Amino acid sequence: MKTNDKKIRIIPLGGLERIGVNITAIEYEGQIIVIDCGLGFPEDDMFGIDFVIPDVTYLEEHKDQVLGFMITHGHEDHIGALPYILKTINVPVFATTLTQGLIENKLKEHGLLDVVERYTVSFGDLIKIGNFGVEFIKTNHSIVDAAALAIHTPAGVLIHTGDFKVDYTPVYGDRIDLERFAELGNKGVLALMCDSTNAEREGFTPSEKTVGRTFDILFNEHRNSRIIVATFASNVDRVQQIINSANKYNRKVVVEGRSMVNVIDVANKLERLTIPPNTLIETESIKDYPKEQTVLITTGSQGESMAALSRMAMGTHKKVKILPGDVVIFSSHPIPGNEKAVTKVINDLLRLGADVIFEDTHVSGHACREEIKLIYSLTNPKYSVPVHGEYKHLTAHAKLAQELGMDKENIFILSSGNVLELSEEKAGVVDDVPAGTVFVDGLGVGDVGNVVLRDRQKLAEDGIVVVAIAVDSYSGELYTQPEIISRGFVYEKEAEELLEGARTELIDYLADRSAKEITDNYKCRSLVRDCLSDYFWKNTKRKPMILPVITEV
Amino acid sequence: MKTNDKKIRIIPLGGLERIGVNITAIEYEGQIIVIDCGLGFPEDDMFGIDFVIPDVTYLEEHKDQVLGFMITHGHEDHIGALPYILKTINVPVFATTLTQGLIENKLKEHGLLDVVERYTVSFGDLIKIGNFGVEFIKTNHSIVDAAALAIHTPAGVLIHTGDFKVDYTPVYGDRIDLERFAELGNKGVLALMCDSTNAEREGFTPSEKTVGRTFDILFNEHRNSRIIVATFASNVDRVQQIINSANKYNRKVVVEGRSMVNVIDVANKLERLTIPPNTLIETESIKDYPKEQTVLITTGSQGESMAALSRMAMGTHKKVKILPGDVVIFSSHPIPGNEKAVTKVINDLLRLGADVIFEDTHVSGHACREEIKLIYSLTNPKYSVPVHGEYKHLTAHAKLAQELGMDKENIFILSSGNVLELSEEKAGVVDDVPAGTVFVDGLGVGDVGNVVLRDRQKLAEDGIVVVAIAVDSYSGELYTQPEIISRGFVYEKEAEELLEGARTELIDYLADRSAKEITDNYKCRSLVRDCLSDYFWKNTKRKPMILPVITEV
Repeated sequence: MKTNDKKIRIIPLGGLERIGVNITAIEYEGQIIVIDCGLGFPEDDMFGIDFVIPDVTYLEEHKDQVLGFMITHGHEDHIGALPYILKTINVPVFATTLTQGLIENKLKEHGLLDVVERYTVSFGDLIKIGNFGVEFIKTNHSIVDAAALAIHTPAGVLIHTGDFKVDYTPVYGDRIDLERFAELGNKGVLALMCDSTNAEREGFTPSEKTVGRTFDILFNEHRNSRIIVATFASNVDRVQQIINSANKYNRKVVVEGRSMVNVIDVANKLERLTIPPNTLIETESIKDYPKEQTVLITTGSQGESMAALSRMAMGTHKKVKILPGDVVIFSSHPIPGNEKAVTKVINDLLRLGADVIFEDTHVSGHACREEIKLIYSLTNPKYSVPVHGEYKHLTAHAKLAQELGMDKENIFILSSGNVLELSEEKAGVVDDVPAGTVFVDGLGVGDVGNVVLRDRQKLAEDGIVVVAIAVDSYSGELYTQPEIISRGFVYEKEAEELLEGARTELIDYLADRSAKEITDNYKCRSLVRDCLSDYFWKNTKRKPMILPVITEV
Repeated sequence: MKTNDKKIRIIPLGGLERIGVNITAIEYEGQIIVIDCGLGFPEDDMFGIDFVIPDVTYLEEHKDQVLGFMITHGHEDHIGALPYILKTINVPVFATTLTQGLIENKLKEHGLLDVVERYTVSFGDLIKIGNFGVEFIKTNHSIVDAAALAIHTPAGVLIHTGDFKVDYTPVYGDRIDLERFAELGNKGVLALMCDSTNAEREGFTPSEKTVGRTFDILFNEHRNSRIIVATFASNVDRVQQIINSANKYNRKVVVEGRSMVNVIDVANKLERLTIPPNTLIETESIKDYPKEQTVLITTGSQGESMAALSRMAMGTHKKVKILPGDVVIFSSHPIPGNEKAVTKVINDLLRLGADVIFEDTHVSGHACREEIKLIYSLTNPKYSVPVHGEYKHLTAHAKLAQELGMDKENIFILSSGNVLELSEEKAGVVDDVPAGTVFVDGLGVGDVGNVVLRDRQKLAEDGIVVVAIAVDSYSGELYTQPEIISRGFVYEKEAEELLEGARTELIDYLADRSAKEITDNYKCRSLVRDCLSDYFWKNTKRKPMILPVITEV
């Protein structure tokens, strides 16, 4: 019997190299479906950038072949770029209930609600779309309604886990549908694309419910204090557990932070959250209750400087003042890169006399090594394509797959733009397509590139010196004294002497030059830059950007 | 019998609020000695700042009363600012052998070697200086020759631990002199100033020697690979252990990174390091040996972008190329704030095919909770003044002291500039003096202040737009078209239309204004700013800095 030699392609598009923006095209015989469409947050050296979205040039070039977006769950790094991308590639969006609710919120903001086709999917449904059959499988994660996808094609079945963990006792809904993974495994899985985030961590991620037990203990211990809990806006189960403990210990609940209010609103409407009547109160009413009868749920657990908790810690929050004896619970771990910002908030809270608690108050939403092993064992894939996580996580994942007996040749760590072609017979990267990320700054999408970033970096480092000179267009003589203005370079009052010296130096330097050089605008600018770069380096060991402005009169 | 009512003062001067710069004045009857004199590294929002040094206005105002600097150990955050401060306050510097060696290196760089009096102290020596007797007590830390100080005064004895840990099996020299702490405790200690860095961590910090055992295991496991170990330049014991393992497994040792070479050189000369003959080779010679017979010790364990390891990981190191199969050992933990930079280096190394190891390859140099308890128990102080660490560490330390039975009223968490006055009878903050940090940028000390930093921040965020106009000084009419130049704002080629629109908008706006307004330079600048801020915000949702340059002709 001949083996199946039909081919399917996996193409990650979203800039795996630095910022994880989740978006993967799956292509079979010229038809494309897209898994997730996330945004990413800028690195420290991406000055002024608000966020990044994927470069979907490849999808734009094959627009007619794109059938739809399949969204695994409602986190920003999986749905955030949808409004941007749907503007040019308007195809249906498939997602489960809460995910769809959060997407709709975004589309509304961008005025796209009426123009984008959307389908809300139930777990177990099989979506027939082109040559694909897409099945949404129940998983657990730090947001309700997370799904894995089984993508059925004539070339075989792909499983994409999305972000997931195994939670045998979830707060809302069922545990992950391990039976379905096993069934698919028994029938044969061509490739597994499995979450790598915790591939370096031994063991099993604890159940979300363990955090609820900690809340109960803490609420009981601190019956006489106001309690403030900071967590991720999107972690609906976490919010549910805070509400449960609040209810048990007779506290009213205040929700602070715009994103938190939004998510709770959507989750409540979609019945993913159960809020007993008379539990929620407005921030303004908090003063009408004794402090020990209130709990505040807030954003800012990552030390984000504009979030509600940071403003409370700085004493700049309009409605909430931290008082000595307040108990602040961080129900989160710092995401790598945010450690210092979080510590700053903690220090500030402690200075105000608050008690700060961050032990046993959080569990991860991602599978650890034992869970990853479980999924491999159940699905028994021919090929492995580790997804989600930085390169070191993908590497650890790949090693783990090898330990489980997979051939090194059947495991693929992809770079963005790689076209991985798979069939029962063979597998390999056969092509590279445009991919990566695009910067969004204010209204601008893609108008800030590396040149602009390099300039911002340089400006941030040593500031700028603007030199305005007016020259006689015939004689090349200076019409007035050069005007030298600096910003971000030296404190001007202290630098009068330095700038005065620069003026003298420049006048002398230009006096030695010919009228021809000085009336040549391009040449003259370069003379000014040379003269002043040298002067400032010699005197300050700094390299401000020097911007000559030459007016001919 | 009357109790001793003589008073001693403790004044931390070095900006405890954000960056830990260690420097503390101890004052008794108008005489001052200073403990440590460190520098600090800038936070992310201190654009362009190289480092910060303490604000020693208070010492300068009392210059004649300052008797000397007592340095606990040779780390940058304890010695780094000495060359800057000694320029104005030239008093003798007391330190143990390696510490003094490292200080001398610095003084040499600044041309101060011949003008600063220095005394090398042995453990157990009692330095008589003014009314003080200062005793250097052997401790253990992540640098050799670390000392605690016992400061004997007529008001009582202060103990300052410096940065320390308890290592019963140190690599070089003796274990911490616990007996002396006990003796002092038996005689009576007025105040203990103890290291707080690990006050949140349970248990005991493991001995430095445990890392040596890990090295042996790793060198044995990877007999066929080149090994690269990244660690802190100043950790002489760590370097010793790498050399020991290299020797055992017949590898030549290459040292990379300027600071690493410097420290090894000093430590070697001062016999704090034992390097067997024919062990060290030059980087250039590495190609003459089979790769499995070499080990490279390098800087860059914190992901510092210019350090040797980062350059190797980026493929830009001139002499060392990372090859598949190389084993890179991180013998360090990321200092808070460096996590992301370290991860980037790890990802880059993995992409080059290196194997990266960071487990059990480092121990802290600071005392954990059990060690802190031990020091309190031995010294049994009347007052506690937690030192070293962020506010949250000081708070954890204070709580620990309370758990050990100290009165809350006898524990003082100080802010910089606080003057804490202590006597047997009472204690409290009696005054506040100028203190904090001063920015160093290039050659400039203190010439970059908050205004400059705010400008740099703004420039980094959205760049700058320079608008040059030449106006007729009588009619107020524009002499030429306004010239608009941007840097770090938008990619100019894409923005032609935007900047052209700005020019038109500005011309129209100014046409409606009177000659009087336009020929008033101050008023005209503000008109230009208003017009263009609005225009750019409306069109881009960005706020570049707008710098008008107006020439009157």
